[in-house]
Amino acid sequence: MNKYAIAIHGGAGTITRASMSAEKELSYKKGLEDAINAGDKILAKGGTSLDAVEAAIRCLEDNALFNAGRGAVFTNEGKNEMDASIMEGLTLKAGAVTGVMNIKNPITLAKAVMEKSEHVFLSGLGAMQFAETMKIEFMPDEYFFVQQRYDQLTQAKETDTITMDHTEIKTSAKDKTGTVGCVALDIFGNLAAGTSTGGMTNKKYGRVGDSPIIGAGTYANNNTCAISCTGVGEYFIRAVVAYDISCLMEYKGLSLKQACDVVVNKKLVTIGGEGGLIAMDAKGNIELPFNSEGMYRAMKKSDGEMYIGIYRD
Amino acid sequence: MNKYAIAIHGGAGTITRASMSAEKELSYKKGLEDAINAGDKILAKGGTSLDAVEAAIRCLEDNALFNAGRGAVFTNEGKNEMDASIMEGLTLKAGAVTGVMNIKNPITLAKAVMEKSEHVFLSGLGAMQFAETMKIEFMPDEYFFVQQRYDQLTQAKETDTITMDHTEIKTSAKDKTGTVGCVALDIFGNLAAGTSTGGMTNKKYGRVGDSPIIGAGTYANNNTCAISCTGVGEYFIRAVVAYDISCLMEYKGLSLKQACDVVVNKKLVTIGGEGGLIAMDAKGNIELPFNSEGMYRAMKKSDGEMYIGIYRD
Repeated sequence: MNKYAIAIHGGAGTITRASMSAEKELSYKKGLEDAINAGDKILAKGGTSLDAVEAAIRCLEDNALFNAGRGAVFTNEGKNEMDASIMEGLTLKAGAVTGVMNIKNPITLAKAVMEKSEHVFLSGLGAMQFAETMKIEFMPDEYFFVQQRYDQLTQAKETDTITMDHTEIKTSAKDKTGTVGCVALDIFGNLAAGTSTGGMTNKKYGRVGDSPIIGAGTYANNNTCAISCTGVGEYFIRAVVAYDISCLMEYKGLSLKQACDVVVNKKLVTIGGEGGLIAMDAKGNIELPFNSEGMYRAMKKSDGEMYIGIYRD
Repeated sequence: MNKYAIAIHGGAGTITRASMSAEKELSYKKGLEDAINAGDKILAKGGTSLDAVEAAIRCLEDNALFNAGRGAVFTNEGKNEMDASIMEGLTLKAGAVTGVMNIKNPITLAKAVMEKSEHVFLSGLGAMQFAETMKIEFMPDEYFFVQQRYDQLTQAKETDTITMDHTEIKTSAKDKTGTVGCVALDIFGNLAAGTSTGGMTNKKYGRVGDSPIIGAGTYANNNTCAISCTGVGEYFIRAVVAYDISCLMEYKGLSLKQACDVVVNKKLVTIGGEGGLIAMDAKGNIELPFNSEGMYRAMKKSDGEMYIGIYRD
C-alpha cells in the first residue's frame, strides 16, 4: 500500500508554555488529536486527500477552541464572518468563500464551490445564496455565540484594537486561537490543502485575510506541495506565501524544508509577517514552520509516526 | 533623466477586426490614448508610478466603453459590483476591494486601502463604509446605468449564460469590453500595477474574479516586474498568474518576455484559461501577451515610442 500523510494547524500566535494551564493544554491537544484522526481515518481507508482535508477541518470548525466555524471570533459589528478555501493538487481546481455567516462548516461550502460551481471564489450574501442551493448546513447565531469570543470583542472595543488572528488582546487573556488548516497526501499520490478562519476579533470594513485566497493562504499542486497558512493575513497576501513555497521548489529546485525556511524565517520576518504554515510535498515529507511563539499543530503518517505540538520546543 | 514607461489594457476577449465598425474602433483607440496619456503625463512630470497607475485606470473607469467604474456590467440582480487592486513594487504594499457599489473610481478606493488602512483587502458593504470615512466619491445608480450593459444582462438572462469578462453573449453583439489595468515604471525606478473590473454580466453568488487578488490579477515587485491581468478570472486565480511571472523571473532567471510566454501561451492555454496581461520589468521592457482573439492595449515610453492595439496583428 502506498503511503499517506496528514498535517493540521489550529493557528499560530503568542502561545507560550507559561501562559497555558494544564487543563487548557489538554483540551487543545485533544482537539488537534481528534481532527488529525478524523482525516487520517479517511486516508487509511483509501479515501482522497481532498476528503481528508475537509474532514479534519470540519472537526476543527466544530470545536469552539479554534477560530473557525463554531469558534469564529466576533467582528466589530458583533457578527461571525468566516472565510475558507480548498485546493486539489492533481487538477489545480480550487474553491473559496469569504464573509459567510451562519454556515456550520465553511470548508464544506468552499469544497462545493470547487466541485459544483463554475467559479472559484464567492463572497458574502451571494456565497450564502449558493450555500442554500447546495443544501449546505446553516446554524443559528446562538451556535456561534461563544462567551469567551464575545468577551474578546468587548475587550478589543474598549482598547480600540483590531486583533489579528492570534494576538493577545490583553496580557492576561490566555485564550489564543486561530485559523485552522490541513494538508494531506493520499495513497493515489494526490495532495490537497484547505484553510478556514473566523478572521480577526473586532475586524471592520469587511476585511479579507489570506485564508480564502488561493496562492496566499492555501495552495496545492502535485508537482510541488500542499500549503495552509496562519498568521497576520495582510503580510501573507503581499508575499503570496503559499505559492511562493511552490515556486521556490519548482523553479529554484529547493526542497520543501528549504523553501519553508526561506519564506517563513526569512522573507516573512523581513516584512514583519508573524505566523506559520503547514507544508507537505508529494513524497509525504512534512514541515510545520512558524516564526511566532507557538503554533497549534499535528501530523500523522501511514507508518504510524504522529506528533502534536503547541510551543516552540 | 531616467526613463519611464506605462502600459494599459482595456480587457481581452473575442475581439476581431471583422466584428468592429470603424467608428467603434476609433472610440476604443481614443479611450486607450486618453488613459495612457493621463498616466504618461504624471510620469513625465516626475510623479510616481503608483499615481500614474491610478490616473490611467481612473480614466478607463470613467469611460463607459470599458467594464470598470462607470461601464461596469450588471450582475444577475441588476447591480454593478466592482473589484479593484493596486500594488507598489518598492514596498510590496497593496490594497484591494471586492463587491463595491456606487464607487466612482474603485482603483482610488483600493489605493486608500493600501495607504490609509492597516489591511490589504476589504469587501462589500464594509469596504463601502471605509470609502465613506475616506471621503471617496460615490455616484448614484444612474451614473452606472449604461443601456448597452443592461441589454447585455437581459440577453444573458434570456440565454441563462453567465458571461465572462469579454465573451460574446450573442454573435451579433459586437460590444465586447473588459477589465482594465495599468503597469508603470517611474523615473525613480519604481514599478506599480493596478487592475479594475465590473466583473461578469449576469454573475451570481458574489463571484470574485482575479482582479482584486494580489498575486493572481495584480502584482508588482521592483526586483522582477509589474503585472495586470484580464481574462477568465477563475483560471487566473488557480494559476496565480501575476506572481507566477514574477517567480519565473526571480527563481528561474527567465526574461520578462520568456516568463510571459510560458504563462500566457503555455500554462494558461493548457488549463483553458483565455485572456492576457500587460507586463513591465524594472528596465521598462514591456510585454502585452494574450491568447484570446484580441486585447485592448496601449503603451508609451519616455523616448516617445507609443503603441495602441486591439486585434491579434
